Amino acid sequence: MSYECFDVSIDAGVAHIRLSRPEKRNAMSPSFWADLPEIVRDIDDNAKARVIVISADTTGERPIFSAGIDVSMFGTSDVSGNDKNHPQHGANFYQNVLRLQESFNALENCRIPVIAAIHGGCIGGGVDLIAACDMRFGTQEAFITIYEINVGMTADVGTFPRILNHMPEGVVRELAYTGRRMAADECERRGLFNTVYATDAEMMDAVMEMARDIASKPPLAIYGCKRIITYSRDHSTADALDQIAVWNMSMLIPGEMMEAMGAKAQKRPGKFMDLPKLKQS
Amino acid sequence: MSYECFDVSIDAGVAHIRLSRPEKRNAMSPSFWADLPEIVRDIDDNAKARVIVISADTTGERPIFSAGIDVSMFGTSDVSGNDKNHPQHGANFYQNVLRLQESFNALENCRIPVIAAIHGGCIGGGVDLIAACDMRFGTQEAFITIYEINVGMTADVGTFPRILNHMPEGVVRELAYTGRRMAADECERRGLFNTVYATDAEMMDAVMEMARDIASKPPLAIYGCKRIITYSRDHSTADALDQIAVWNMSMLIPGEMMEAMGAKAQKRPGKFMDLPKLKQS
Amino acid sequence: MSYECFDVSIDAGVAHIRLSRPEKRNAMSPSFWADLPEIVRDIDDNAKARVIVISADTTGERPIFSAGIDVSMFGTSDVSGNDKNHPQHGANFYQNVLRLQESFNALENCRIPVIAAIHGGCIGGGVDLIAACDMRFGTQEAFITIYEINVGMTADVGTFPRILNHMPEGVVRELAYTGRRMAADECERRGLFNTVYATDAEMMDAVMEMARDIASKPPLAIYGCKRIITYSRDHSTADALDQIAVWNMSMLIPGEMMEAMGAKAQKRPGKFMDLPKLKQS
Amino acid sequence: MSYECFDVSIDAGVAHIRLSRPEKRNAMSPSFWADLPEIVRDIDDNAKARVIVISADTTGERPIFSAGIDVSMFGTSDVSGNDKNHPQHGANFYQNVLRLQESFNALENCRIPVIAAIHGGCIGGGVDLIAACDMRFGTQEAFITIYEINVGMTADVGTFPRILNHMPEGVVRELAYTGRRMAADECERRGLFNTVYATDAEMMDAVMEMARDIASKPPLAIYGCKRIITYSRDHSTADALDQIAVWNMSMLIPGEMMEAMGAKAQKRPGKFMDLPKLKQS
Amino acid sequence: MSYECFDVSIDAGVAHIRLSRPEKRNAMSPSFWADLPEIVRDIDDNAKARVIVISADTTGERPIFSAGIDVSMFGTSDVSGNDKNHPQHGANFYQNVLRLQESFNALENCRIPVIAAIHGGCIGGGVDLIAACDMRFGTQEAFITIYEINVGMTADVGTFPRILNHMPEGVVRELAYTGRRMAADECERRGLFNTVYATDAEMMDAVMEMARDIASKPPLAIYGCKRIITYSRDHSTADALDQIAVWNMSMLIPGEMMEAMGAKAQKRPGKFMDLPKLKQS
Amino acid sequence: MSYECFDVSIDAGVAHIRLSRPEKRNAMSPSFWADLPEIVRDIDDNAKARVIVISADTTGERPIFSAGIDVSMFGTSDVSGNDKNHPQHGANFYQNVLRLQESFNALENCRIPVIAAIHGGCIGGGVDLIAACDMRFGTQEAFITIYEINVGMTADVGTFPRILNHMPEGVVRELAYTGRRMAADECERRGLFNTVYATDAEMMDAVMEMARDIASKPPLAIYGCKRIITYSRDHSTADALDQIAVWNMSMLIPGEMMEAMGAKAQKRPGKFMDLPKLKQS
Repeated sequence: MSYECFDVSIDAGVAHIRLSRPEKRNAMSPSFWADLPEIVRDIDDNAKARVIVISADTTGERPIFSAGIDVSMFGTSDVSGNDKNHPQHGANFYQNVLRLQESFNALENCRIPVIAAIHGGCIGGGVDLIAACDMRFGTQEAFITIYEINVGMTADVGTFPRILNHMPEGVVRELAYTGRRMAADECERRGLFNTVYATDAEMMDAVMEMARDIASKPPLAIYGCKRIITYSRDHSTADALDQIAVWNMSMLIPGEMMEAMGAKAQKRPGKFMDLPKLKQS
Repeated sequence: MSYECFDVSIDAGVAHIRLSRPEKRNAMSPSFWADLPEIVRDIDDNAKARVIVISADTTGERPIFSAGIDVSMFGTSDVSGNDKNHPQHGANFYQNVLRLQESFNALENCRIPVIAAIHGGCIGGGVDLIAACDMRFGTQEAFITIYEINVGMTADVGTFPRILNHMPEGVVRELAYTGRRMAADECERRGLFNTVYATDAEMMDAVMEMARDIASKPPLAIYGCKRIITYSRDHSTADALDQIAVWNMSMLIPGEMMEAMGAKAQKRPGKFMDLPKLKQS
Repeated sequence: MSYECFDVSIDAGVAHIRLSRPEKRNAMSPSFWADLPEIVRDIDDNAKARVIVISADTTGERPIFSAGIDVSMFGTSDVSGNDKNHPQHGANFYQNVLRLQESFNALENCRIPVIAAIHGGCIGGGVDLIAACDMRFGTQEAFITIYEINVGMTADVGTFPRILNHMPEGVVRELAYTGRRMAADECERRGLFNTVYATDAEMMDAVMEMARDIASKPPLAIYGCKRIITYSRDHSTADALDQIAVWNMSMLIPGEMMEAMGAKAQKRPGKFMDLPKLKQS
Repeated sequence: MSYECFDVSIDAGVAHIRLSRPEKRNAMSPSFWADLPEIVRDIDDNAKARVIVISADTTGERPIFSAGIDVSMFGTSDVSGNDKNHPQHGANFYQNVLRLQESFNALENCRIPVIAAIHGGCIGGGVDLIAACDMRFGTQEAFITIYEINVGMTADVGTFPRILNHMPEGVVRELAYTGRRMAADECERRGLFNTVYATDAEMMDAVMEMARDIASKPPLAIYGCKRIITYSRDHSTADALDQIAVWNMSMLIPGEMMEAMGAKAQKRPGKFMDLPKLKQS
Repeated sequence: MSYECFDVSIDAGVAHIRLSRPEKRNAMSPSFWADLPEIVRDIDDNAKARVIVISADTTGERPIFSAGIDVSMFGTSDVSGNDKNHPQHGANFYQNVLRLQESFNALENCRIPVIAAIHGGCIGGGVDLIAACDMRFGTQEAFITIYEINVGMTADVGTFPRILNHMPEGVVRELAYTGRRMAADECERRGLFNTVYATDAEMMDAVMEMARDIASKPPLAIYGCKRIITYSRDHSTADALDQIAVWNMSMLIPGEMMEAMGAKAQKRPGKFMDLPKLKQS
Repeated sequence: MSYECFDVSIDAGVAHIRLSRPEKRNAMSPSFWADLPEIVRDIDDNAKARVIVISADTTGERPIFSAGIDVSMFGTSDVSGNDKNHPQHGANFYQNVLRLQESFNALENCRIPVIAAIHGGCIGGGVDLIAACDMRFGTQEAFITIYEINVGMTADVGTFPRILNHMPEGVVRELAYTGRRMAADECERRGLFNTVYATDAEMMDAVMEMARDIASKPPLAIYGCKRIITYSRDHSTADALDQIAVWNMSMLIPGEMMEAMGAKAQKRPGKFMDLPKLKQS
């Protein structure tokens, strides 16, 4: 498959989705929004990989992870609301935003971890994207901007509900109200980034190594971790404790545990089942 | 208007509310609790400003942002619970605490950002106050104390539900149980303060500049950010995503977006509508 | 009372529960899970102490706070799920996990603060344990590992719902997916530990001093703080504000407030009531 | 005090609020929305009565409890949304609807029971009103209509969240989608009305007698019932159980219990304290 | 389009989906589960109708609305769990149940009302289906059975969360524990059915007339009602009140209101916009 | 075992718990509250029965199911709050109420259905008890009274959160505010009772037959129904749908399904596994 906005490669259990329009500053065109969830679901439903890494081709004039939503979309009713006087503007707008949100929800809802590796600017819609990933890593040249206020908008594709779990609320408010850049070091210090690396190459080496490491772990147990962390974030402690107990009734697999412990003892990589393939609904 | 506990001035879209009883260590007297929400609502309902900055006159013996609730109030039934044996103590006490809470809820419920600029000690009720602001900045001489434990109380005017979004839970518990001071640097490092400045003057310059910057942004979009961040804090991710989509159906204004982009392109300040004035209910 | 896995001593209002099987790496055997909640409830219900400190005898080969669940338990149906083909596996497993969870819930549900002092490795079940404590302190040699992924499991005794309040979500996910160690300094920087000390002795001195300090405060007000912080963590801001107001109707005690203020004024320790003893249910 | 839309009288602890514009079919004009919450708060805050009964002067051409929102309000921006193209339409509209909702929230939030006695049609806004009362009684000639669909609207002043607790969901949907009348007998059979009476006089006699009976009970305990039922409706069973326990710590009054039991034994009316008066905030 | 299990016809804004395998007792085969949501989404997304009626061809030996899930599916891993010993049984089973649930969620999530017209037995999965509809009507010969307990299962395709809003909890428990039949009259009396008719013909006449009546109302306002009722069912009163206010900011359409009032005044059918078509995601 | 307040017998999988102090009007003494949860847990944990029926010896002067809390308890600090001036009154009272609540929570939390069979008056605490049962049946002579208001209290042992799921809210409020009796027929008509029988003997025959019928069904599937209905009552539809899917991953037992279907086909009683015994915690 080839995509307008993405290169996709899979190796050693790691799918690498690369934003591939550096000349367009990796902006998010209509095909970006449509293709990303398709790519993610294809990998996940067919168990093609055990981890996803998202990075960007940053060989443009200045390195940029993503400039956010493509300005060309602002001319359409989907985003700009130009036809606001149309009596059905609201119903149309609502469905459009839900569809954009679904594109990034796909990252959260799939069964495997998604790691964002950020070099250069991550702007507007780019922040919505990385906020929906499991983890975020950056280079010294990386920065983020909740840019929407600068174009007269309130961010609506997922930044706010998710980023409050990554950074203190007061910092989120400052970024949202001022639209200022936050550099990589501050991103790391405030919790949004896990680690900052000196160069893009260094970051990609480290991220791919971590991705391969995660891909070597038992996928069903990784799936359980992802699900339970997401569930815990949105439920009370009591509800989450119960959910874990019910989940593990069925999802704790003796064979996988044996293999994990055996591999550890024998200092060899474990052999674990891939996640089951899902029938297309 | 003149107030016992506050100086209020408005300039360039920024309202500056200043605690003005340094000789009383800016303690919170009955008029403090009554006037603060009135001042905030007057500014917000009448669209008199686009941002509020709260600071304190710290020219007392030692700089102090606020010593918290005025000890004179402890002699009254409202706070001390002196008349606890009265059969209606509970019903009275409950209404009194709700009223105190409402004073600081006004900061959270208004449509415009509220920035706290803290020099010197911020103690007891002072922490309740700043926890309800959108952002907190401090000087090297600033510190906070969840002081209530030292007078045999459990803080009840809003500190706990809000500060858990500003700092790790374990740090909150330490402050609550020990009643110890936390200095500005630790406040910043733990997430409660956004930035620490060397001097009061430096802080006020920076904060007022940020306030003017925010006041130059489209007020309806800022209102949307404030609301959605607050909503996200208290709802699940799924509920917050939906809320944003519904809100923006109506609140994303093409004219404001055009003006914002045009102003950016022409490197001039944008001209945005003030928030609509609200009828008094 | 003597216990297989614990030494318990009480002095000056501080109960010290010490993991006492260094030769077993302080692993959690069946008696560990059964005894810990009994010990905690005995202290709390009978008001035997006002604070609990949990530390470990780390005089083994290498210092270790706890190696987590005892491997011997993996041979039993309780944990390993070996008898997964039994038709009642699910119902049994569910009850077993609930019972393990209850052991650590006891730390959260008791009326007094519980402080964890961690020297050496804190692994797997050890992380479940410390996540349920009020505060965590460590030494330079301390580290934590959400180890379960390395044995093919998803942690199910409380780590995930609780640790998300102690650290940024992205960091939690990294630890869960990779099973890597996180050293003391990073634990502190990310919010999990309140403070890191150079040596075990230094830590224990500091922690015991803090514990005695907390024990010198009015126990009913400490109880209120513990409860309201826990309540706030799991409820909306509006619900938590209301809960505090209702709680303090009855729990704000004029006599304790007088004594607290008097003691402060006279620079003497206050004399406060112990918590009421609870009847065994 | 005299009001455009209401007659208010108080006798024997029962406040009777009567919709008094039969010639206007007791439609809800701007002063209706403004005055109703003022009247309710005045009664409640000043403990002027222990129960409120709301009925209507139904001496118009045909008996009608209320025709709902006054059509004259549709010409204003508040309701009709005529100026929908104004860029601030949304923000204005939102505040207007919140204000209308607040008028009926006052019935739910006051500390004393509110009983609706319905003769003739109860239409549109009338259903929003009675849904917010504690209990509803009707005559054979009473009927309700969720009328909004017939004027192209979705009811937004409180009908839907509340009426789902009064009737099965499928019946609510039928009324909402068809805008059809539901006669008194069906209202009673489906749970919305407690009892149906043959004539207005019969109903008023029965309702006033019940109101006086409730007014003879201890007001603090009645307040507790009202609050806890409302709280239970919106919270989980576990949360509500806890809330009741905390509330009664302070609100269960031995003196009132003694008096209640003594009065019962001696077959005389009890003498109970009025609710405490509330300071105006 | 032709379907194995359904006849679909559309007339006068009403889509009629008819279960069409009376010889198989209208049992739910794999194609049933796959086709139903496709049919519903096609109607809704393309605005092909304004109301959906679901009934069944009941010309089999005995009239039966649906016998529930097709027994042939029990031989497959999807439902019977025959391969429970497979280590990935849990993950597969979970996805299968979610997919079955999604089939009926489509009825709840579409923008138009769905009416179930039930003649004869409605058994097992049939109850899951009708519980997800907006309204249920039946004939004297209709009955329901939560049949799952009779085949050793706990119903898992949506009956329980939804039916608790249609009937008192104690009645639901009786049906679930005993697997007994509940006849049409009791269904109506307990709230599950809106009305019971003597014969199938009578019911279909009445239901189709109601459907045409609803189809004559403004679709956007009907959509708002459906959404807000569903939202209210799952949220607190405060959250639902706010949601309605935000929704109507954009969704209350002056032109539709004018047309509705004009049509009423002139006693003619109104002309309202169809819902906007949705792009396929 | 013999108990002060109960007779307990077990036959054919049905445990019959009978209130056995008719001379004390089956009032709830301290031993009542302590013994009931012990009895229930003993039956459930040891899988001694598959259904519990609770009825009363009504051979007193007048038949009475239960007069509620024993008046002798009012003289103690547990209930009457006589020592309200004690500074620790609140903390003691709170624990006492929680303990009373736990007695009836045991009915809701056990794994098997609990059926209440009510003859004569069910008063005060009696209503708390039956509200926590799965189903309620009554005789023509049965009636209920939320009696607490008549002794100056707000019911706090579970009536309100649970009874709102059994009856329309407006009816609950009437009963709570007036303390009036509601006769059996009205109880049935409003949803609280499933069925009303002419005599005690008739009721007991019918209830015991239903209990034996339920005891003949697969206990794990019954347990699933009980749990999921309770879970659905307190969670959103989306959460409950997910919970059922996760639960059935493990709890849907092919062998039990085969046996259920085989038994049905052969018109013989099925042989199902008892629930697993639980270890005492």
